[in-house]
Amino acid sequence: MFEKIAIIGCGLIGSSILRNINDNKICKSVTVFDKSKDVVEIIKKENLCSNFSKDVKSAVKDSDLVIFAIPLSSYKEVLLSAKDSFKKDTLITDTGSVKKEVNKIFENFNLTNISWIASHPIAGTEESGPSAGFKDLFKNRWTIICDNKNSNKKDKVEKLKKFWEFLGSKVKLMSIEDHDYILALTSHLPHAIAYNIVKTAINTDEKFKDEIIKYSAGGLRDFTRIASSDPLMWRDIFIDNSDNIIKILDEFSKNIEDFKKAIIEKNGDKLLKLFASTKNVRKEIIKAGQDVKSPDFGRKKN
Amino acid sequence: MFEKIAIIGCGLIGSSILRNINDNKICKSVTVFDKSKDVVEIIKKENLCSNFSKDVKSAVKDSDLVIFAIPLSSYKEVLLSAKDSFKKDTLITDTGSVKKEVNKIFENFNLTNISWIASHPIAGTEESGPSAGFKDLFKNRWTIICDNKNSNKKDKVEKLKKFWEFLGSKVKLMSIEDHDYILALTSHLPHAIAYNIVKTAINTDEKFKDEIIKYSAGGLRDFTRIASSDPLMWRDIFIDNSDNIIKILDEFSKNIEDFKKAIIEKNGDKLLKLFASTKNVRKEIIKAGQDVKSPDFGRKKN
Repeated sequence: MFEKIAIIGCGLIGSSILRNINDNKICKSVTVFDKSKDVVEIIKKENLCSNFSKDVKSAVKDSDLVIFAIPLSSYKEVLLSAKDSFKKDTLITDTGSVKKEVNKIFENFNLTNISWIASHPIAGTEESGPSAGFKDLFKNRWTIICDNKNSNKKDKVEKLKKFWEFLGSKVKLMSIEDHDYILALTSHLPHAIAYNIVKTAINTDEKFKDEIIKYSAGGLRDFTRIASSDPLMWRDIFIDNSDNIIKILDEFSKNIEDFKKAIIEKNGDKLLKLFASTKNVRKEIIKAGQDVKSPDFGRKKN
Repeated sequence: MFEKIAIIGCGLIGSSILRNINDNKICKSVTVFDKSKDVVEIIKKENLCSNFSKDVKSAVKDSDLVIFAIPLSSYKEVLLSAKDSFKKDTLITDTGSVKKEVNKIFENFNLTNISWIASHPIAGTEESGPSAGFKDLFKNRWTIICDNKNSNKKDKVEKLKKFWEFLGSKVKLMSIEDHDYILALTSHLPHAIAYNIVKTAINTDEKFKDEIIKYSAGGLRDFTRIASSDPLMWRDIFIDNSDNIIKILDEFSKNIEDFKKAIIEKNGDKLLKLFASTKNVRKEIIKAGQDVKSPDFGRKKN
């Protein structure tokens, strides 16, 4: 499918791609660049790659697929180093969670001999770093490719689609604008809320600090999972997608005010109606294969 | 420990107590009352109890421990039926999630020959009904007993503590006021937020409805679990604990406003500081044995 693939950044996502490629042999060779010595050390120790590049330039050289699996705030720096070293017709993609801002960066570089097509695998865990990766991370998950109906890249989009499908993913094409809005709802809003709910819980009276931890099984612990995701990655997401997130947070705040009114007025019917509608969403998510049916997420009984 | 135990209400919690008692033999006999014929049918089918009471009166008669495992809004009705049938010195406890309002109900009945001591096992799943129960539900979970430093009930509190410990639970004594405030933070706030975040996500443009379900693995699906808990139970909780919940929701809204300000100002340092503090809470929860360490809650890879 590809002769040589370069993975730039080898944390949870990059190393999961690497593990999968190693098993599936969808290219003749794969090279990895990561600026962190610790990351490289782990990859070497786990025997995941023998072909490390000493810098971005040598990684992208001769590669026909280059994958950015780095924080959104690093794209510019990486492009600055790599811009003169891409092979003609190289396909560059990424794994980032927001598209509008990084797409602007690519447009500003105006690289004429390459094709840039954004990807976003909706997969991950709350952990980060190469040890957290696993080859089946993308299995049965969706990957969004932002083609923006760019007809002169049609062949490349098809090739990229096949690549993600090879990794076990289902693929959906979408515009950058729709991607950033939908992800704000399904991912960025939940993370913003999770961070703030945990903050609200821990900023309580000193005397209750231990109690908050002890009795977290009543609900709070579920939120702490996504509130422990990679801080650097989430800083970049919130800043890059701030317009959508602010708009949705405003909607959310209106809903909270409505809810407060209902409980002050002891409006039980209104509450029941709300709870019935949200209960239904979970059923649909399970039906769509995006979560497990077992109660408590199938947490092992401890 | 007890001669006869009466379980009033046999859903997720009541049936889990029943299953555990059946295995542990901590009383000579156990009787069950549930006003739902369907519930009784399931309990019979699973051979969990042979001794059904036809009404509350006959259930509490001769019982030295009576457990209310019913919605908060049913306590008054049950007490009205049972008030003249309690044996002298009966210990009445419950499993409800808010204490102040139901305690008022007990005080108003002013039953002189019984001891009322509130309990709250912090255990459960998003499912409800007797089939969802299991005997190890309370294992390694906390149960709060609200003793309100009532010294003339010291022996009964000790007996009740032993009962929950027999079921596998760890026990903490606490005042009703502290209980209702702490649970508002660790359980009622997360549920209130979960219902509203799911509402915000589904109230979007019609054209994105399917997308919300498809890409929910990016965070939203975690919230749908607790937003699919028993609607009736949660209506009662929000109404009974409205003062605490409103107070905490106001704090939460202030935090959200702060957060919005930080992303509008692209204040990355402030965001990183927030994320670092919340990441730490999860570590403490895992250390305290209140959640599993496996990424993604150990969801089976699907």
